Amino acid sequence: MSVKVSRRAHFNAAHRLYRPDWSDEKNDAIFGKCNNPHFHGHNYELVVSVTGEIDPVTGFVIDIKILKDLIKSEIEDALDHKNLNQQVPEFKKLNPTAENIAVFIWNKLRPHIESSKKLEVVLYETPRNFVTYSG
Amino acid sequence: MSVKVSRRAHFNAAHRLYRPDWSDEKNDAIFGKCNNPHFHGHNYELVVSVTGEIDPVTGFVIDIKILKDLIKSEIEDALDHKNLNQQVPEFKKLNPTAENIAVFIWNKLRPHIESSKKLEVVLYETPRNFVTYSG
Amino acid sequence: MSVKVSRRAHFNAAHRLYRPDWSDEKNDAIFGKCNNPHFHGHNYELVVSVTGEIDPVTGFVIDIKILKDLIKSEIEDALDHKNLNQQVPEFKKLNPTAENIAVFIWNKLRPHIESSKKLEVVLYETPRNFVTYSG
Amino acid sequence: MSVKVSRRAHFNAAHRLYRPDWSDEKNDAIFGKCNNPHFHGHNYELVVSVTGEIDPVTGFVIDIKILKDLIKSEIEDALDHKNLNQQVPEFKKLNPTAENIAVFIWNKLRPHIESSKKLEVVLYETPRNFVTYSG
Amino acid sequence: MSVKVSRRAHFNAAHRLYRPDWSDEKNDAIFGKCNNPHFHGHNYELVVSVTGEIDPVTGFVIDIKILKDLIKSEIEDALDHKNLNQQVPEFKKLNPTAENIAVFIWNKLRPHIESSKKLEVVLYETPRNFVTYSG
Amino acid sequence: MSVKVSRRAHFNAAHRLYRPDWSDEKNDAIFGKCNNPHFHGHNYELVVSVTGEIDPVTGFVIDIKILKDLIKSEIEDALDHKNLNQQVPEFKKLNPTAENIAVFIWNKLRPHIESSKKLEVVLYETPRNFVTYSG
Repeated sequence: MSVKVSRRAHFNAAHRLYRPDWSDEKNDAIFGKCNNPHFHGHNYELVVSVTGEIDPVTGFVIDIKILKDLIKSEIEDALDHKNLNQQVPEFKKLNPTAENIAVFIWNKLRPHIESSKKLEVVLYETPRNFVTYSG
Repeated sequence: MSVKVSRRAHFNAAHRLYRPDWSDEKNDAIFGKCNNPHFHGHNYELVVSVTGEIDPVTGFVIDIKILKDLIKSEIEDALDHKNLNQQVPEFKKLNPTAENIAVFIWNKLRPHIESSKKLEVVLYETPRNFVTYSG
Repeated sequence: MSVKVSRRAHFNAAHRLYRPDWSDEKNDAIFGKCNNPHFHGHNYELVVSVTGEIDPVTGFVIDIKILKDLIKSEIEDALDHKNLNQQVPEFKKLNPTAENIAVFIWNKLRPHIESSKKLEVVLYETPRNFVTYSG
Repeated sequence: MSVKVSRRAHFNAAHRLYRPDWSDEKNDAIFGKCNNPHFHGHNYELVVSVTGEIDPVTGFVIDIKILKDLIKSEIEDALDHKNLNQQVPEFKKLNPTAENIAVFIWNKLRPHIESSKKLEVVLYETPRNFVTYSG
Repeated sequence: MSVKVSRRAHFNAAHRLYRPDWSDEKNDAIFGKCNNPHFHGHNYELVVSVTGEIDPVTGFVIDIKILKDLIKSEIEDALDHKNLNQQVPEFKKLNPTAENIAVFIWNKLRPHIESSKKLEVVLYETPRNFVTYSG
Repeated sequence: MSVKVSRRAHFNAAHRLYRPDWSDEKNDAIFGKCNNPHFHGHNYELVVSVTGEIDPVTGFVIDIKILKDLIKSEIEDALDHKNLNQQVPEFKKLNPTAENIAVFIWNKLRPHIESSKKLEVVLYETPRNFVTYSG
């Protein structure tokens, strides 16, 4: 009996979408308002899901308290109230699009989840724009 | 790294569920209140998702601005503030159930999305009733 | 100890905004897409609130079950899955704007609520457009 | 054309997570606040999805009214306003975790859905914790 | 410049509505399913609002962090994962209706808020049923 | 018949809470993570409400299209995808707390609303933190 267990979390951050190797004109053409050099920001909503067999002893796939604490220590502490471009090393050279942030989160969490279990990350940049990554 | 990118949109429309080749009694029995010959309506909420590889240059699977404009030109302009049965040719003879509207939306969008990418449509007829179609 | 008790409900309906004594051009200029002669529709969300003293015997201001049943019999049965212009007598000559529908709902409920209690109606035409009427 | 049709429902219930064969200390260590012997409770939100071919006659995969009534008779009547541990026989010896409740719901509904159609259950214990089971 | 500052919080609890001095029949007639002697429960959502002048030095009416911590220490620690009837002394003899719980919360918070500021409590028993108390 | 008409909008922005005349230590003590000198950001949700008499000719208190366009031109164009501290002149010296932003928005809109009508602004900094200003 394989069940998917999901936990919702959130963090606030500033970012800017641009490539330093492009001209201002090209960055504006591709990234529009998201290329504001003074940055803008979002309330990111995050749903992390772990899929695996129910442990017959506890009735849990994963203790949601452990998943909550893992999201806190690995993701919220790293990203909450941060400027992603300037304060998160991985985004010094990588554009912090929702797609790339979701992959970053997945890569940070994957080593902490049992290898027999599947991991999925859904990241809402706004209530209308969101991305899903499953490895 | 395959990521699913989702965009939420909405439109308001009137519709009626019935088959002209059935008697009133049969239409009432099958479609109930939805068979009101004076029509009723909904605030349809729509989530369109495109799945594909992240472009390493931009960090995008698809520019969400392009997806937003595509939903506007292909779907909102065709359906918003319309009577589906009377003003949308495809539903002159096809019952505008949520299922059929979702397939209609998917078919309208599919030619505009790169063939290597997957397309999914979720259509909420109400916050409690919704359908998903992936081709 | 005066407390406000609120109950959320919903109904779906079709409507059209226009004045029969105006030209088509004037109706289009004022009501835009809402003047579609084939009608369009909404999932209306409704919050009805009753404010009064807590009954020390029950701990209720009003039994929420009674309020729920009242909204069902007076409002949902009258408006759900209806064409407001054609099937609700009050809107034969009165434009079914959100403002006018909220007043209509308040007037229908007021006689059923004890006169010592206050009544408020919030009506969501869409998640982004809503109105409040308190008599 | 295979479409997934989803219906949202809800019920309120009390529960306690513990194993009677464990000491109080062990139950506290594993289940924390959820092991309160006086019980606590939730507003469970439930999404039931049925996936199958659209019936070309009606335009439905499944009549949502039938699905709604099925959820009412099989799930809401069994679980709403109940103490899961004490009043639902299946949880007399089985821990009523979200995972186990989702499997219970799926097992109750499966015999009532055509075998050619797929069934999925999503159960929200809180807006931040939820599980998905598909058989 | 008087501004109202609001903070949303939540807690889960079990309760039962009944009067020990009434017969089972009378309790059932008045409180219905809420009179289940085995208890049922809710995810309560709470919005606490403080209204006052903006401090020109900080730009705050009240530091939302202080308000968050106050709700945690006074309300969540007292009510979360509790059986209200059995484990919260105030509800040993007082029916834990939403109305009475809102007044209880307001009374617990009032001494901690400057007397020049107004306090309002909104308590959602479910997404559809909620109450408001302002003293 | 006085009715309140509300329109929901949103914008994304970066900000930092601090006073340049304070030491880093004092700014950290008062503003905590919000004092990140690299900025952080939010998806601000905004509800603007106008209260007045229903125009018996149109059935409107205010044409919601006009209100929507006003919010676009006065607020979204000024704040969306901006760094509030660096790019909005009013916040060069004024701390961009939710309270101060709400007052700023109210002051920007007030001249455009008929003086006989009341204006209210609700600003959500996050889904859990929000403020209300009515002049």
